[in-house]
Amino acid sequence: MTDRLFSLRLVQAVFYENDRHWNFPFNLYPFHTLYLVEDGDGFVRTGNTLIELKAGEACLIPAFTLFSCWCDSHIKKTYVEFFLDSPSGLNVFFEQGKILTQPIPPRQLAYMKALKPGGSLKESMRFEGELLCILSLFISGDSPKPAPGLARLRPLLTEIHANLGCDLQVSGLARKHGYSPSSLSHAFKRVFQCTPKQYAQQLLVNVIKHEFLHTDKTIAQIAAEYRFCDAYYLSNFFKRHMGVSPQVYRQTIRGGNNGTRMVP
Amino acid sequence: MTDRLFSLRLVQAVFYENDRHWNFPFNLYPFHTLYLVEDGDGFVRTGNTLIELKAGEACLIPAFTLFSCWCDSHIKKTYVEFFLDSPSGLNVFFEQGKILTQPIPPRQLAYMKALKPGGSLKESMRFEGELLCILSLFISGDSPKPAPGLARLRPLLTEIHANLGCDLQVSGLARKHGYSPSSLSHAFKRVFQCTPKQYAQQLLVNVIKHEFLHTDKTIAQIAAEYRFCDAYYLSNFFKRHMGVSPQVYRQTIRGGNNGTRMVP
Repeated sequence: MTDRLFSLRLVQAVFYENDRHWNFPFNLYPFHTLYLVEDGDGFVRTGNTLIELKAGEACLIPAFTLFSCWCDSHIKKTYVEFFLDSPSGLNVFFEQGKILTQPIPPRQLAYMKALKPGGSLKESMRFEGELLCILSLFISGDSPKPAPGLARLRPLLTEIHANLGCDLQVSGLARKHGYSPSSLSHAFKRVFQCTPKQYAQQLLVNVIKHEFLHTDKTIAQIAAEYRFCDAYYLSNFFKRHMGVSPQVYRQTIRGGNNGTRMVP
Repeated sequence: MTDRLFSLRLVQAVFYENDRHWNFPFNLYPFHTLYLVEDGDGFVRTGNTLIELKAGEACLIPAFTLFSCWCDSHIKKTYVEFFLDSPSGLNVFFEQGKILTQPIPPRQLAYMKALKPGGSLKESMRFEGELLCILSLFISGDSPKPAPGLARLRPLLTEIHANLGCDLQVSGLARKHGYSPSSLSHAFKRVFQCTPKQYAQQLLVNVIKHEFLHTDKTIAQIAAEYRFCDAYYLSNFFKRHMGVSPQVYRQTIRGGNNGTRMVP
């Protein structure tokens, strides 16, 4: 039996069109994000790097990358979120430490748009097949080389994600991984341009956003899951970071009046 | 998270060219077999159905299908063995109860031939991606409908495979699944054109053939694994079914003099 080098797990895939309200300043996810751009004037920024979302290109944002995204007037794209697990534990995209783009044949872009991965078995197989072909474009022929700094942080980041919650103390976990408070702070600044606390909080905000967007869990359920004292605390935390209450966010993001769902 | 409708597990994939010595009268495997035919005058037969292996076509032989295959003068093809597991337990190809063919774009045939799935991560992803796209062609848009007879037999077949060995008593397992000796015999004749005992023995022979072909296990090791008294018993069983001893089979099939490995 061939050893499996990878395992693809799809979180969601959706084609959508949006106007200039598509504007998400802070995104940080435990899964990879892929944009298959059909048209528009969109942008993605991470750190000091600005990427134009060009028609006919795929843009891959590795998991654990803090990024912002917006468009000037409109954007049309297929949006895919996925995990790519590897038995070796190597996170192939993340290790490269940056956002990647690749031109995609128009034929394939059209397929991906038309296919509904949540549909029949036939459609799902075709979708995952095309997706794997596209993802293979982003991998160099050689084994991926860990980006400096990221490689050492990775076990800690994995643990932060596994223990994500209101009461998470990054410094406690960091000690286990051999970081002093100052070396930890330095490592995060270099790799993510933010403090460890900002990183963990941003990740928590985004995971909660994801729960609001993709599940029907109540605020109280989500609060319990991420160890907030109660729904009130969660609402306050969310409002502080997002500027709106969970209720308003959920209504707005799920389409509200015009029925157009908004996702980053 | 999207529920996974399927999981692909590759056993092996290899491109090869053979002459008229490519002639395998009895094949029955627990995994699916896919031929991507580039050229030649090959055939596959199951029951009363004869299939021509046409250049530019893919031929899919579902797991648990007893088939023979041969060519008149030569054959060039990529040979793929794989499992396609489904959480529902539904064996999508097997349920259709027959060998299936589909035309494949030349571009894709060339890719599959060139790609080495045991190679780098990039190659493996691309190979599995293309393979999924090809396999999706074999699935009808609707949910697959179990072939009559096969659906009821499936749990018993799964148990036969899980308990495969020299001492396996099919009738004992069959009772657990509500079959009397005569209803069992009737069901097998209708679906597989053979008796339950022939089916279990043929499956055992082929699984052992596979061990000889793809592993370096000794005859004694394989004998122990499939509950033969010793290597001598296994050799006799093998010779009775295959006409040659395991030693001779292993040498011949692995290429011996000319270095060309032969696989069904």
